[in-house]
Amino acid sequence: MSTCSETIKKGRGRPKTFDRDDALDKALLLFWQHGFEATSMADLVAATGAKAPTLYAEFENKEGLFRAVMDRYMDSFAEQRARALNCPGKSAQQGIEDFFRTTATCFTDGKKPSGCFIICTSSALAASSSDVARMLHARHHAMEATLHDFLHQRQVQGELAAALDVSQVAEYLACVLQGISVRAREGASTEDVNRIIDTLMRQWPTLIQP
Amino acid sequence: MSTCSETIKKGRGRPKTFDRDDALDKALLLFWQHGFEATSMADLVAATGAKAPTLYAEFENKEGLFRAVMDRYMDSFAEQRARALNCPGKSAQQGIEDFFRTTATCFTDGKKPSGCFIICTSSALAASSSDVARMLHARHHAMEATLHDFLHQRQVQGELAAALDVSQVAEYLACVLQGISVRAREGASTEDVNRIIDTLMRQWPTLIQP
Repeated sequence: MSTCSETIKKGRGRPKTFDRDDALDKALLLFWQHGFEATSMADLVAATGAKAPTLYAEFENKEGLFRAVMDRYMDSFAEQRARALNCPGKSAQQGIEDFFRTTATCFTDGKKPSGCFIICTSSALAASSSDVARMLHARHHAMEATLHDFLHQRQVQGELAAALDVSQVAEYLACVLQGISVRAREGASTEDVNRIIDTLMRQWPTLIQP
Repeated sequence: MSTCSETIKKGRGRPKTFDRDDALDKALLLFWQHGFEATSMADLVAATGAKAPTLYAEFENKEGLFRAVMDRYMDSFAEQRARALNCPGKSAQQGIEDFFRTTATCFTDGKKPSGCFIICTSSALAASSSDVARMLHARHHAMEATLHDFLHQRQVQGELAAALDVSQVAEYLACVLQGISVRAREGASTEDVNRIIDTLMRQWPTLIQP
């Protein structure tokens, strides 16, 4: 049960404490659906049920709240996807495939807005929102860096050829993932997205050829 | 020179006629930068320089103006990209590569907001804006259909194997293009995008293998 009902019950009994995680989850959904620009502090106050001064005290402003929301998203979703990659017993090919399959399910499970939060909000962003853009790009780059580090590690271990440009492969894989996010946002099903992953994985031998 | 200065010069001399294309070009830039939701009719009036009653008379409402803007975008940019594809003398591989190179330049030329207008505004859209979403998806589907028709035609002519699932290839190519648009929006240069196209085209033989 939400502890954010304090605004409704104000004055009755001991004030309930502000539930930061619950507020962040609600703010995440709102930003995810409407983007950074189209979401106002008034919308965020209404959705979280928190008092406006509480939100300002906790996050300073909309940018601060957005930053906290991004971190929460990275902790819960992005790390879960990265775990699918980093299982020592798996081949590089299996690790990449599992990462994509986990992501596909995550983007299309219908339990939250479709697609990747970082990619969706980044695409929705005006050129003018440069601070927020920088924050998003840093997180986004982290995803590509995860893929790069995984491939590089497998290269060091000798599983992938020493002459392979792993940066270029990671960049390409990140691009396909971004395309998948756009398609999920537009209503592609888990099955649709898995068909794209089938096509991608059929190219694996060519992809890792130096 | 813009003919939209009527609001400034009103009452002096003969009223200038409303320049529909000029207003659409300015509205296109605004929607492209900020998305459908974050752009208000007041913003559009200010950017186009037209009078609000003129915009309402011409386009009825924001959705109507957005529809006209999409059509103008499709006429000027999407058709230009499709022409790169449909040159009878080219191989299928060359046609696809030229289509991607033209698109990459178009997404990153710095003369207009980066990325594809349709993909950018679609990603920025709330789940609630269903009419606008339908309009965007129809245009978006048209791009994938262009790729599909091209591949199907080359299949009928015997250049591509009869057993190849051209729908699946078109779907995959459209996904990569969507990813490229996201990256362009995030600041990727023409060179960055061309590196991704290099990786894609190296996989061409595997991609068209049935």
